[in-house]
Amino acid sequence: MNSKIKWLRDKINQMDMQGMVISNPINIKYLTGIDAEGILLLTRKENFYITDGRYIEAVNTVLTIDDGIIVYDIKDVDNYDNEDFFMFCENVGFEDEYITYSKYKEYKQKYKINNMVETERIIEKQRSIKDKEEIENIKKACEITDNCFKHLLNYIKKGMTEKQIAYEIEKYFIENGADGVSFEPVVASGVNSSMPHAVPTNKKIESGDVITLDFGCKYNGYCSDMTRTIFVDYVQDYVKKVYDLVLKNQLQIQKSIKEGMTPKVLQKMVESDFNINGYTMVHALGHGVGLEIHEIPFINSKNENILRENMVITNEPGIYIPGSFGVRIEDTVLVTKGSCENLTKSDKNYIVIK
Amino acid sequence: MNSKIKWLRDKINQMDMQGMVISNPINIKYLTGIDAEGILLLTRKENFYITDGRYIEAVNTVLTIDDGIIVYDIKDVDNYDNEDFFMFCENVGFEDEYITYSKYKEYKQKYKINNMVETERIIEKQRSIKDKEEIENIKKACEITDNCFKHLLNYIKKGMTEKQIAYEIEKYFIENGADGVSFEPVVASGVNSSMPHAVPTNKKIESGDVITLDFGCKYNGYCSDMTRTIFVDYVQDYVKKVYDLVLKNQLQIQKSIKEGMTPKVLQKMVESDFNINGYTMVHALGHGVGLEIHEIPFINSKNENILRENMVITNEPGIYIPGSFGVRIEDTVLVTKGSCENLTKSDKNYIVIK
Repeated sequence: MNSKIKWLRDKINQMDMQGMVISNPINIKYLTGIDAEGILLLTRKENFYITDGRYIEAVNTVLTIDDGIIVYDIKDVDNYDNEDFFMFCENVGFEDEYITYSKYKEYKQKYKINNMVETERIIEKQRSIKDKEEIENIKKACEITDNCFKHLLNYIKKGMTEKQIAYEIEKYFIENGADGVSFEPVVASGVNSSMPHAVPTNKKIESGDVITLDFGCKYNGYCSDMTRTIFVDYVQDYVKKVYDLVLKNQLQIQKSIKEGMTPKVLQKMVESDFNINGYTMVHALGHGVGLEIHEIPFINSKNENILRENMVITNEPGIYIPGSFGVRIEDTVLVTKGSCENLTKSDKNYIVIK
Repeated sequence: MNSKIKWLRDKINQMDMQGMVISNPINIKYLTGIDAEGILLLTRKENFYITDGRYIEAVNTVLTIDDGIIVYDIKDVDNYDNEDFFMFCENVGFEDEYITYSKYKEYKQKYKINNMVETERIIEKQRSIKDKEEIENIKKACEITDNCFKHLLNYIKKGMTEKQIAYEIEKYFIENGADGVSFEPVVASGVNSSMPHAVPTNKKIESGDVITLDFGCKYNGYCSDMTRTIFVDYVQDYVKKVYDLVLKNQLQIQKSIKEGMTPKVLQKMVESDFNINGYTMVHALGHGVGLEIHEIPFINSKNENILRENMVITNEPGIYIPGSFGVRIEDTVLVTKGSCENLTKSDKNYIVIK
């Protein structure tokens, strides 16, 4: 059995569960390496992965004997098998924050489970602490992202559309060793930059524009995430004032992130400094990054769980002036014992392109 | 109030519900045009959309006074408001096949709902019947897809990688008026074509390859989906035999699709003809296409709900010989009263590229 499944079996045993139903494909990928549609069942003694004809061949290519997972084609699984899996299990865990209400009812009935127990993201919580190999993958994704930013500074010219630039980002990633983008790139220029989640449009880049570039890639399935705000031809003083305030806070947070710090405190630090200066922090300061672009831990005013060594999170304060412009600066950051390490390393001084 | 929300209010009233919580963003987009993160609450008299600071500006751009939707920033909604929304509602519907078990518990508590009623995809079912504007959007997406296929036949050359071709598909869509791809394109050559859900690799196109191209785009949010299997330099007789059988079935299904037909019967037709010839149909014959690439109705051996006029579905039989090759042929199809119309129209005879 592989070490991640062993960890999970120990964990659920400690919680007095004799089995678990896992259906979140990202959790399954994390535990097994399998990238398909199916369900993973940890029963008293064995691990089963049930998939369908489309994936059997691919799944058997990924698994080795050491994984200790028995693969079934769903066509070969009948009602008797389903009722057998958890026969002697009193409590069976399920992903209450992933599966739908109707799936919950379906599993309970199909597998004749006495007591389905909410596991409250135990796997997602474990995923938040990255091992060496995972950190290497994220570092590589961040490196490609930094290189892409360098490329963009030469590439972006007045007259190009936001869509064209977003497309260049996707192209760069594919041609430079990434699996692809980790999310649809944000390229928001001029007034569009005032929307934190702007979608690239056909607006052309003009002199005087503020451009927010929020983008990242995947490497071996692991994500990077970075935002830089740059300028075309010149930066006006009222924009500089906002930029300086965002950057000051981003650097302050960078100095504050370390094992033991709570997300809530980080969020409040930025919120209060923005408020003092007459602005508002309208979104969360950051989020975990890993197999998913947004994952545990979430850096917001509600999260009081301390940061731990080898978590990877983003640090992304932003200010948005409706109808005018916006500034966001973001790095992907590795939490260490006494400090943190920026994994995205691109320049954060004013960058003015011509 | 817009016509789609009016429809839904009538529908839930008929089902003795006085309100509904809608959180599936695709359903919200369908009902309101809003493309954001938030929750739509239909209460006794009013419609509320609750979102956060990131989206307020974008949402207010989309909605008009005629939509009759009151927009709240979640920051301004307190516990008293939450308990007020459904104050005089005995039964409140929820998307039991969309929201998680833990969200179900959260909503029930937060909104103090007496009785949360499973609505079993009422909105998704309504979405399966397309109106005129929706059909126009899908037709346009299919037209761009056909043109992309024509382009690919000139573009694909021996020595190119599958990834390069997948990337060209994405590029073509972006540069030719589509919003982007409707799903990650499948480009599977040689032995890779034996996996129905192959992911493009760095394998180069070689003489003698069978290539499966499964791709589609979005236009105004609406999807297209098409598969063609083509050949490099020559087609071997044992491949022709499989291709002919798949095509025969695809054309037979095309003749059989019409209002009143059941998906189960369509699936069984292909399964039995494949079985007679010594092959197996390992996946579903098709699926609905609309705002999502896979939506109601699903064309498989379980679905006994009849097809209706103005549904848009795929027709995609396939045969996969493990370790050797595969053939799939797929069109997006509009169901009409007495027959159907192929919306993707690309050639289905043997296509051999040099």
